[in-house]
Amino acid sequence: MQKDLRITVWNEFLHETMFKEIREIYPDGIHGCIADFLKEAGYQNVKTATLEENEHGLTDDVLNNTDVLIWWGHMAHDRVQDAVVEKVYNRVMQGMGLIGLHSAHASKIMRKLLGTDSHLLRWREAGEKEILWVVNPSHPIAEGVNDKIILEHEEMYGETFIIPRPDDVVFLSWFEGGEVFRSGVTYTRGRGKIFYFRPGHEAFPTFFNKEIQRVILNAVEWAKPLKNAPKCTLGEIKEPLNPLSNPTLNVIEGLHNQK
Amino acid sequence: MQKDLRITVWNEFLHETMFKEIREIYPDGIHGCIADFLKEAGYQNVKTATLEENEHGLTDDVLNNTDVLIWWGHMAHDRVQDAVVEKVYNRVMQGMGLIGLHSAHASKIMRKLLGTDSHLLRWREAGEKEILWVVNPSHPIAEGVNDKIILEHEEMYGETFIIPRPDDVVFLSWFEGGEVFRSGVTYTRGRGKIFYFRPGHEAFPTFFNKEIQRVILNAVEWAKPLKNAPKCTLGEIKEPLNPLSNPTLNVIEGLHNQK
Amino acid sequence: MQKDLRITVWNEFLHETMFKEIREIYPDGIHGCIADFLKEAGYQNVKTATLEENEHGLTDDVLNNTDVLIWWGHMAHDRVQDAVVEKVYNRVMQGMGLIGLHSAHASKIMRKLLGTDSHLLRWREAGEKEILWVVNPSHPIAEGVNDKIILEHEEMYGETFIIPRPDDVVFLSWFEGGEVFRSGVTYTRGRGKIFYFRPGHEAFPTFFNKEIQRVILNAVEWAKPLKNAPKCTLGEIKEPLNPLSNPTLNVIEGLHNQK
Amino acid sequence: MQKDLRITVWNEFLHETMFKEIREIYPDGIHGCIADFLKEAGYQNVKTATLEENEHGLTDDVLNNTDVLIWWGHMAHDRVQDAVVEKVYNRVMQGMGLIGLHSAHASKIMRKLLGTDSHLLRWREAGEKEILWVVNPSHPIAEGVNDKIILEHEEMYGETFIIPRPDDVVFLSWFEGGEVFRSGVTYTRGRGKIFYFRPGHEAFPTFFNKEIQRVILNAVEWAKPLKNAPKCTLGEIKEPLNPLSNPTLNVIEGLHNQK
Repeated sequence: MQKDLRITVWNEFLHETMFKEIREIYPDGIHGCIADFLKEAGYQNVKTATLEENEHGLTDDVLNNTDVLIWWGHMAHDRVQDAVVEKVYNRVMQGMGLIGLHSAHASKIMRKLLGTDSHLLRWREAGEKEILWVVNPSHPIAEGVNDKIILEHEEMYGETFIIPRPDDVVFLSWFEGGEVFRSGVTYTRGRGKIFYFRPGHEAFPTFFNKEIQRVILNAVEWAKPLKNAPKCTLGEIKEPLNPLSNPTLNVIEGLHNQK
Repeated sequence: MQKDLRITVWNEFLHETMFKEIREIYPDGIHGCIADFLKEAGYQNVKTATLEENEHGLTDDVLNNTDVLIWWGHMAHDRVQDAVVEKVYNRVMQGMGLIGLHSAHASKIMRKLLGTDSHLLRWREAGEKEILWVVNPSHPIAEGVNDKIILEHEEMYGETFIIPRPDDVVFLSWFEGGEVFRSGVTYTRGRGKIFYFRPGHEAFPTFFNKEIQRVILNAVEWAKPLKNAPKCTLGEIKEPLNPLSNPTLNVIEGLHNQK
Repeated sequence: MQKDLRITVWNEFLHETMFKEIREIYPDGIHGCIADFLKEAGYQNVKTATLEENEHGLTDDVLNNTDVLIWWGHMAHDRVQDAVVEKVYNRVMQGMGLIGLHSAHASKIMRKLLGTDSHLLRWREAGEKEILWVVNPSHPIAEGVNDKIILEHEEMYGETFIIPRPDDVVFLSWFEGGEVFRSGVTYTRGRGKIFYFRPGHEAFPTFFNKEIQRVILNAVEWAKPLKNAPKCTLGEIKEPLNPLSNPTLNVIEGLHNQK
Repeated sequence: MQKDLRITVWNEFLHETMFKEIREIYPDGIHGCIADFLKEAGYQNVKTATLEENEHGLTDDVLNNTDVLIWWGHMAHDRVQDAVVEKVYNRVMQGMGLIGLHSAHASKIMRKLLGTDSHLLRWREAGEKEILWVVNPSHPIAEGVNDKIILEHEEMYGETFIIPRPDDVVFLSWFEGGEVFRSGVTYTRGRGKIFYFRPGHEAFPTFFNKEIQRVILNAVEWAKPLKNAPKCTLGEIKEPLNPLSNPTLNVIEGLHNQK
């Protein structure tokens, strides 16, 4: 089955170029790995974009033709230009889905959308075991997953994770070293849907894991824009829908124009 | 009863100086009116601050000694300096409560905390009737209010209001002209609690209304910081709480230091 | 396009038989009207069931072959047998979607699922105007609706509506007489998704309204069970996934068997 | 400082009478232990009630004079009379706070209030280590707790916990054997506030732990009724607040009286 959703996979693509050990895990980059399993699942319109490209590969043309944007970044969040962040933000407001993976919690775009110090959390890079438990078995993002996903080696992220109350919590993680984490959480901002998914440290082959792939595939479908979203009539509405009983009072002509 | 909470009331304080009609309603400014009823209620430590003051009256000293900040602005959101917004944001992260009144939904600080196009909504300045209905009768912000507050004349704000899903919705407004609005909503960001309360257009004596005052007084108590908030241990945690069974794997020394 | 979702439309079917005025509006019953527009939309497997049938038409066979149950009741909630309510409840736990229409808020099944006095609210039967505003323009249940639906004549339901905090609020209603209402709200219970939708008083042809039909069609798709829901392993789990460092302590053999 | 809140601690009080090992841990019963630390904290009006008493100790007089009810039960949920459950439910609707401890998730009253199969979860009685992490550092129930509470020995409860989406999640538990759990969650039902707190298996001295006591003390204050709760005007409201433009239509006299 061909699927016409337009997906862009964004990756920092630094670790893979700088470190032989990472390149051996992801020879085509993390974005290459993700794009591959999306295509295998039938998505025809999958693009990739990376930090070092012009406008980080996220030109107006690319963004305006993206239904769901997947974002992986870890070591160079500060190098992402504010102008590009602003454009991604505006697309989310219009309905583009956004899937933030792993350290995307600390990216400029996620911090702007969440409005809190979401970069703060506990972390430990010791390759310990992680178990992701489904806590919402009715959520489409959990479809086809058993009650848990076991990853033998991952970086640890632990609470307290400074995020707004999620719309939905789909996964909670257990780490061997004693921590827990809200690993799969959803938000709505404007017309856009956002899913943050914790796993995916560059040093482990997490994105080759079939269950992790399944979650991301589910999330892509969940996060896609409505085909026919409500068209809100915003701004000044001079004519009431229902007649007003009282003449207007204390209205200063032109006051609001001065804003 | 004396109450030692430290409250700062911030007001743009432009309409009252520019327009005689507004000055007649709020001769001491909106901030003066709000500070007065806070003092009458027993709060001893109430400050005010306004746009034209140095750093908008929100110096480090003022902010660091504020438990709850009340914010009213309408026509000059853009004139608030980004550096001050950043400081207010940081104080909210640390636990300072924030009460945004009326057009504060479009202020820089609220937009930064909400992470969405919260300035967008329907509006009409026709002095029409507003009825605020309590929809959460267990919420401390609704204490002492009957099931509704009737305001004979207010500016209309109507849905669709582009805000994140609130933690709690306390009030919904009905407007004579046919619109509804989520008029009293709460959020948490970091350690800080936020309450947005819709009424309070400058052309109407809304802040002299005893029921509106009661809601703001309730909100101040609700939004105050915890005296003894949990001290989260964040950052890198090298030592696990529980022993790890497996030697670390694929960890690249110094990789994270390069971030 | 044929759609294989299995939908059962349940209707009290008393007003239409007892009152000529209602029968003229819904000659085939409210269930007939709803089943018709579902079939027109391509659903092949649409059943109806009514109060006076054996087991209210909701036999094990019917329920076990229902993906989404639509429920309309108003005057005879007490006559629904507890055993049937229990079976519907169990099916929701397993994943069956439930769409409660209009006075279904006071039905035994909705009260059991919501766990609160959801039958309480304000009401007035005066055929006044209702405007349903979209407040979540990203929600699939609002797809294809403009920012509002206007119903010229409806029964009024007003806040305070004694319901748990909804997962999502999709619609808020304005009533000409001064009330507002959370008219489209979602919940999750077990693996089942629930949508409550306020309009649909028997005395008005609301279910012939194309926009109302669109909302119900959207809700059916939203509420359908996951095809492949996570299979949680619940109950006693003697073997830990991770080895325990400490011998068990104070465990009394057989204590739990006595429960 | 004397505190006048009226608290009733309900305990099944079977394990302590049936098993010497449990009696040695809680010689005055779990209810005795909890009542003791409440009194030490200044609460003067603390009652206890147990299963074997008449009406389980929860007579009308007791319930009508209880502001917050604490509930511990584990092995005999079925023996609690439905009539008593109904009375407790009605008091919660009116505003009484309810704190459910440990296996109270499977009690009749919690299941009635939550509306889902909240008795389902994973469990293991192996005395393993539990770490409760604060995930909402702004919540009053977490006040004075560090970022985690470590319990050396507890019964394990693991996800998937079949509960409705909580209003707030305050604590998440990590268990040595590999599970996680939403251990501190809040709900609102009617005017009542509910806090469920997982720890407290009878075989461990959990309720003597000062941090656990602190959480319960915080929860008591959080869950107490509003002194002056909004008095909603519900039922039929014949007179609109705002005049109706259209004569009533299709209203059948006496129809609703037949309900």
